[in-house]
Amino acid sequence: MSGTPPGVTISGTTRLYVVLGDPVAQVQSPAMLNPLFAELGIDAVLVPVHAKPEHLERVVAGLRCMGNVDGIFVTVPHKAAAAGLADRRSAMVDVAGSANALRREADGSWYAENFDGIGFVAGLTGAGHDPKARHVALVGAGGAGSAIAAALLTAGAERLSVCDPDTAKLNALAARLDTHWPGRTSTSAQPRLDGADIVVNATPLGLKPGDPLPFRPDLVPRGSVVADIIMKPRETRLLREAAGLGHHVHYGISMLDGQLDSYRAFFGLG
Amino acid sequence: MSGTPPGVTISGTTRLYVVLGDPVAQVQSPAMLNPLFAELGIDAVLVPVHAKPEHLERVVAGLRCMGNVDGIFVTVPHKAAAAGLADRRSAMVDVAGSANALRREADGSWYAENFDGIGFVAGLTGAGHDPKARHVALVGAGGAGSAIAAALLTAGAERLSVCDPDTAKLNALAARLDTHWPGRTSTSAQPRLDGADIVVNATPLGLKPGDPLPFRPDLVPRGSVVADIIMKPRETRLLREAAGLGHHVHYGISMLDGQLDSYRAFFGLG
Repeated sequence: MSGTPPGVTISGTTRLYVVLGDPVAQVQSPAMLNPLFAELGIDAVLVPVHAKPEHLERVVAGLRCMGNVDGIFVTVPHKAAAAGLADRRSAMVDVAGSANALRREADGSWYAENFDGIGFVAGLTGAGHDPKARHVALVGAGGAGSAIAAALLTAGAERLSVCDPDTAKLNALAARLDTHWPGRTSTSAQPRLDGADIVVNATPLGLKPGDPLPFRPDLVPRGSVVADIIMKPRETRLLREAAGLGHHVHYGISMLDGQLDSYRAFFGLG
Repeated sequence: MSGTPPGVTISGTTRLYVVLGDPVAQVQSPAMLNPLFAELGIDAVLVPVHAKPEHLERVVAGLRCMGNVDGIFVTVPHKAAAAGLADRRSAMVDVAGSANALRREADGSWYAENFDGIGFVAGLTGAGHDPKARHVALVGAGGAGSAIAAALLTAGAERLSVCDPDTAKLNALAARLDTHWPGRTSTSAQPRLDGADIVVNATPLGLKPGDPLPFRPDLVPRGSVVADIIMKPRETRLLREAAGLGHHVHYGISMLDGQLDSYRAFFGLG
């Protein structure tokens, strides 16, 4: 089979999963999950769906009505909005204010979960960078950033410094985090990297070739970990420059690796 | 490759086509078109979408908003409703009152076409049963039946006898046909098979194992053709009994074969 992933065979009985994004061309989940479906002998397929923000509600309303759609994966920029388009949501979704997976329940209702944070922390810990008792600087308080913040605190991060230029969004997240983990989160409009053991880019900066850096890697303390959530390109300019400065780097794709087992359990796959 | 069709590889850049039906498990188009996409090197996939009639409008509204959906195939029971969900439609759709393919145009609008009749008549003619100057009895004045009626008259059928228990629907179709081909169509609530050279089942009867026959094959004139539009099962009870009585039989799958080239041209595939 020369190393290519097994192709998918689709018939009228095939169940559907979709991944929603804008853009959507960069998503890696179809390439990861479809070979898994084939391996497990599951008659299902994951397809990308391009939905602009102004169309998200109508797209999700349509998907919810499709009788053979069992799950919806949600990526940038729809994670916050998607949380509001399910009938019920997990505690993690409530804290993070965003969802990245919606599942059709046995009663036909839709349930939202967020695996970004869980997957990210699992990947980070698996790579030897356990955030427990560490100081973490998190850049970006959007959908992924919020989920990662909640998961880092769940995993025992001692101090979390979150920055985002949108102070209303930032303060709302900090308030939600403080109700669960009081006194461990601080906020700032600009990145504050001093004393950080781990610095995380949770912004979309790095997706496009001309993007500015989300923060200055030369301001990261020596010996710290620089982690990115961008999956494509695998090595962002941020990680390239951070590696050049001698920092440990952690690739975005690890977040998805850490999520695969969680997704399988959530969707009841094999 | 042991005779199995080549599998599809799906990534974030893959374009989508869907086929809408209720039920949808029986559709053959994904098994026909996906190997063609793979052969032609087109990064696209056709997936089934199960839409109940009460959800059709919402499902189509969602699909129209999905930026990477380029086409919608429509099957039972949605063909009549689908004609009204496009921005523009072909003359064939207007006459047939139904559509089985919707295409996204360059300006983002949606255009409806109907290939059922064209495909059916192409398949029939290809099998040596040219309807030109013949008397055809057509059972069922629904979406497929209407399209087949228009195509049979276009192909030169001398007399067309259409039956359907829904007389309002039947009379509306006859009126539309008469404006284009005056005096060639007659109608009846029950099948009238006397004098027919070709008898066509254009009802969904035969899809399910316990379905009654759409008409009595023993009343078909000796030496006539009995044609079915049901594709799965390939041999319906109707065709099995008709064959047993010595009639020529014509399988539903021929309709799809005849449509493939038309679809390729319509969607600009290869």
